[in-house]
Amino acid sequence: MHLLGLDPGLRHTGWGMIEVVGNRLRHVANGAVSSDGRQALAARLLELHDGLSDVIERWQPAVAAVEETFVNKNPVSTLKLGQARGVVLLVAARHGLPVTEYSPNLIKKSVVGTGHAVKTQIHAMVGMLLPGTKISNEHAADALAVAICHAHHAATASRVMIGQRG
Amino acid sequence: MHLLGLDPGLRHTGWGMIEVVGNRLRHVANGAVSSDGRQALAARLLELHDGLSDVIERWQPAVAAVEETFVNKNPVSTLKLGQARGVVLLVAARHGLPVTEYSPNLIKKSVVGTGHAVKTQIHAMVGMLLPGTKISNEHAADALAVAICHAHHAATASRVMIGQRG
Repeated sequence: MHLLGLDPGLRHTGWGMIEVVGNRLRHVANGAVSSDGRQALAARLLELHDGLSDVIERWQPAVAAVEETFVNKNPVSTLKLGQARGVVLLVAARHGLPVTEYSPNLIKKSVVGTGHAVKTQIHAMVGMLLPGTKISNEHAADALAVAICHAHHAATASRVMIGQRG
Repeated sequence: MHLLGLDPGLRHTGWGMIEVVGNRLRHVANGAVSSDGRQALAARLLELHDGLSDVIERWQPAVAAVEETFVNKNPVSTLKLGQARGVVLLVAARHGLPVTEYSPNLIKKSVVGTGHAVKTQIHAMVGMLLPGTKISNEHAADALAVAICHAHHAATASRVMIGQRG
């Protein structure tokens, strides 16, 4: 069963696909879907939608996980992130994937062992937990961290199920 | 040619469809697509996506217009609105509709004649500009105002064209 971790962003949405084999994790694939900043917003959102749909159709994950968003940034960034995040969640829902959200602290704790890790520590630990993985970029690394968190918590997390498309 | 005005919101997304016949406007249909607040976010976004797709497939608009968003509200609202707005723009893009954004002031000016009108004035004027129209609710009224604005400015507005889906 493939698990898809997602790190939404308007410019780059990171994704990371892993698999649980027995009691260990196996890396499947990772990358980022990018949108062209010279395009209009609706066209950029369509790029994210189509790119992410391709990823899901290719790797056929059974579940998706995404980081909860905190809105302590500037409001213009929050609106941009919100628009991208809405599309990312929608793509998962359109493919009938249950989507679980995890707090940034829980993700850090799952990957590094403490809720106060910095980005570089998280990325280094993702590499150690998925040995031999070539990580495309920081967005993909963040997405893999979410996927790892989901693998660790899938049994206990309050999973938010959504219906299959009728 | 049908014009679709949109007023995005996570709970209620208003829509209004009008037609330009010679030099007058004709009302086609209006309503709101709502999402169930007890559902998970991804499921709510899917409800908006599917409901709005149905509207577009039924009434076959050639273009869409939406109000520009200003982010002077609280950040939690901004994130919610952003997520809904991303999906609304995406649905238009997925159906190959060019999407134009208009400032709230320009919309007020187009409908009421001044940029400082209040909601009740706008809704009353929408009713006068589209006589005999039964307006479903305030979200639909706002969406019709955007559509009217677009009809008035379509010739001169910097239209943002997006490609048809390949």
